[in-house]
Amino acid sequence: IEAGERDILRSLIADLHESDLGRLIEALPPPDRPRMIELLGADFDFTALTELDETTRVRILEELSTQTVVEGMRDLDSDDAVYILEDLGDAEKQEILAGLSVPERAALQRSLDYPEESAGRRMQTEFIALPPFWTVGQALDYIGETEGLPEVFFEVFIVDPTFRLSGSVPLDRLLRTKRGTKLGEVVTPDRHVVNVLDDQEDVARIFERYNLISAPVVDAAGRIVGVLTVDDIVDVIQEEADEDLKALGGVAGDEELSDSFWYIAKSRFAWLLLNLIAANLASFVIALFENELQRMVALAVLMPIVASQGGNAGTQTMTVAVRALATRELKPSNARRIVARELLVGLFNGVVFAVIMAAVVFARFGVMDLGFVIGLAMIINLVAAALGGILIPLTLDRLKVDPAVSSGPFVTTITDVVGFFAFLGIASLWF
Amino acid sequence: IEAGERDILRSLIADLHESDLGRLIEALPPPDRPRMIELLGADFDFTALTELDETTRVRILEELSTQTVVEGMRDLDSDDAVYILEDLGDAEKQEILAGLSVPERAALQRSLDYPEESAGRRMQTEFIALPPFWTVGQALDYIGETEGLPEVFFEVFIVDPTFRLSGSVPLDRLLRTKRGTKLGEVVTPDRHVVNVLDDQEDVARIFERYNLISAPVVDAAGRIVGVLTVDDIVDVIQEEADEDLKALGGVAGDEELSDSFWYIAKSRFAWLLLNLIAANLASFVIALFENELQRMVALAVLMPIVASQGGNAGTQTMTVAVRALATRELKPSNARRIVARELLVGLFNGVVFAVIMAAVVFARFGVMDLGFVIGLAMIINLVAAALGGILIPLTLDRLKVDPAVSSGPFVTTITDVVGFFAFLGIASLWF
Repeated sequence: IEAGERDILRSLIADLHESDLGRLIEALPPPDRPRMIELLGADFDFTALTELDETTRVRILEELSTQTVVEGMRDLDSDDAVYILEDLGDAEKQEILAGLSVPERAALQRSLDYPEESAGRRMQTEFIALPPFWTVGQALDYIGETEGLPEVFFEVFIVDPTFRLSGSVPLDRLLRTKRGTKLGEVVTPDRHVVNVLDDQEDVARIFERYNLISAPVVDAAGRIVGVLTVDDIVDVIQEEADEDLKALGGVAGDEELSDSFWYIAKSRFAWLLLNLIAANLASFVIALFENELQRMVALAVLMPIVASQGGNAGTQTMTVAVRALATRELKPSNARRIVARELLVGLFNGVVFAVIMAAVVFARFGVMDLGFVIGLAMIINLVAAALGGILIPLTLDRLKVDPAVSSGPFVTTITDVVGFFAFLGIASLWF
Repeated sequence: IEAGERDILRSLIADLHESDLGRLIEALPPPDRPRMIELLGADFDFTALTELDETTRVRILEELSTQTVVEGMRDLDSDDAVYILEDLGDAEKQEILAGLSVPERAALQRSLDYPEESAGRRMQTEFIALPPFWTVGQALDYIGETEGLPEVFFEVFIVDPTFRLSGSVPLDRLLRTKRGTKLGEVVTPDRHVVNVLDDQEDVARIFERYNLISAPVVDAAGRIVGVLTVDDIVDVIQEEADEDLKALGGVAGDEELSDSFWYIAKSRFAWLLLNLIAANLASFVIALFENELQRMVALAVLMPIVASQGGNAGTQTMTVAVRALATRELKPSNARRIVARELLVGLFNGVVFAVIMAAVVFARFGVMDLGFVIGLAMIINLVAAALGGILIPLTLDRLKVDPAVSSGPFVTTITDVVGFFAFLGIASLWF
């Protein structure tokens, strides 16, 4: 198909949604991707590029001629254009911006000047702003007759002469109000106004909590500069959940399925190295008890059980704590109660598993004392796991370190060290 | 405040968003919650209850009089009413339904008859459906003058006389079209129509992929029965991500911060018991090599390092695989490539860590051979971890078992067993 038959290609692609077009691109062999886009020319909807993985997108953009990219950028909504531009190298970014008209360039440049992951980066700069002295009828006529309005919108914003936002009128209210009414009389102040510098995660939290569809974005002076819609926010929510989940599993938040072997091997290596250090620490604890291990080889056989059970219990508590911190459900006001509850759960499960393991060990080795020792160690380690699992995320969060990324190694180090030390230590005192 | 001073309470609460009202309820001591609602009477917005944890909500509803609940349900959107009703016991559900008027009851009963987690449960049954022969002007007038239309809507749906859906006209297009135009001429067929029995997770995936704001829901005969909006979908996305994240951490997907000690202790116990069995299995493997451990206690000191490193590498691969399966990024078409890549990453990191550990062990114990043995075991275990981490989720997924819930114990059992067996086995052959 890629032999240059432009017309067939065009007719095939004409009816595709940008998202399906994105998937089609991903299914193509890499060298064909930019070739197809060049071939389609103006028929290619650059929005499709926003549906791709970052790695894939950057690679394609680098191979396209600047001319093609500039042409493609022209038809994009401002938020999509920024999304595509932001991951490119500085030189390339400037080259593309230089090809655009002055107002287009200024608008994009301004969005790019906002910090990464801020509302300013995500917002769309196309919106409808009207003065309060216009009537509903004027507004409806304006919307009906003006070219070049945003493709989709849910409300009109009401601004004063300096563009300061005084509120909005949703489309459905506009339709249900008499034409003669002044906009100023039906406007409601927006309760959830986003500041252009707000972090996208905080904005997502607000959208979620108040079930918003869109929200105006204002600058420090209260002037409206853009609008955020829930479809952008859905992506943010998905991304943030993704990052937390991966971080807890010891994987970089931005690892993508399309990443190269090298990138992945390197990024996973760092985490495993940290774990290796932790494991060696635990191993040094074991080495303290070489004499006991020599005298009683059953200790070596049983000690991983205590450590592993603690590790899993700690991970449970940590998972709940990290997630509750991310969704802001865990706050200073209820932290004390949750810590107490986790402690109680750890103690309770510790006692239950102590009894179970004591019975198992007695059955396997016929030594009553050994069962008692492993039971006691189990209780100690599950309590330590509960404490570590909740206090470490809480502490990291207070230190402004992302608990999802950093809690894991600390928690398992604690449960390994405490597990081996408690079991072997009690055994050395007992026997 | 709770001494019965209704007026003060009313004025305090009058201006709160339902979500903030929900938070206020959560902050109250449990016995005061139903009391406050009874006190507020008709001034209490039952929507606030949808913002609460399931446990908290059910407890409050059980304590409220049926009369109060029935009154409160009347003002709710159908999707919120279903959301509140669905977690109640059957007897209580029937009692409340009996208090409603016949059409209200029939509508709710129908929604409740759809399976849990289906589109039918989540949809709103209020929507605007018009015939294609109406003009844009008629439609606008109808919207402007009719009472009792849905509170917020983004499009009108065009249906034939049997209510079969032929497409929709978004509000903004309605505004930009001449009043004389027939709706039939501006209607676009909805490309993304949801079937009432579709799973909510699949629906969420469609909303996300195509950046939808709302989508019509149709029954088997193609008749429109409701509409799903993106704010419901945001909750689904959040919930699903939450469940996967918790499942990977060994916690029940529905565990909530407000759950009681007992509930949590029980649900965590099940997972830990599974882990205990796995740990005992690994312990039996260790026991096979009691003689070697007796002869050379350094083996006992080092063996947890091999197992732990494998466990972490396996968890990394598993996390990526589980997430990619959930988002449908990992498909049969690219599974082979991803398996190969993970294998390569495992082999590569295995070799690197083999070299590091060999050096560490030589430095600690001064025995060159021991370094060689641990290095070899490390390579074997990291390759096993990579294979287990990707093949187990893929297999579970093919067997229609949720890989997020069940992969963990399998993967760590493999890395523990292979780790101990490889290290101690090679050692027993070598020395």
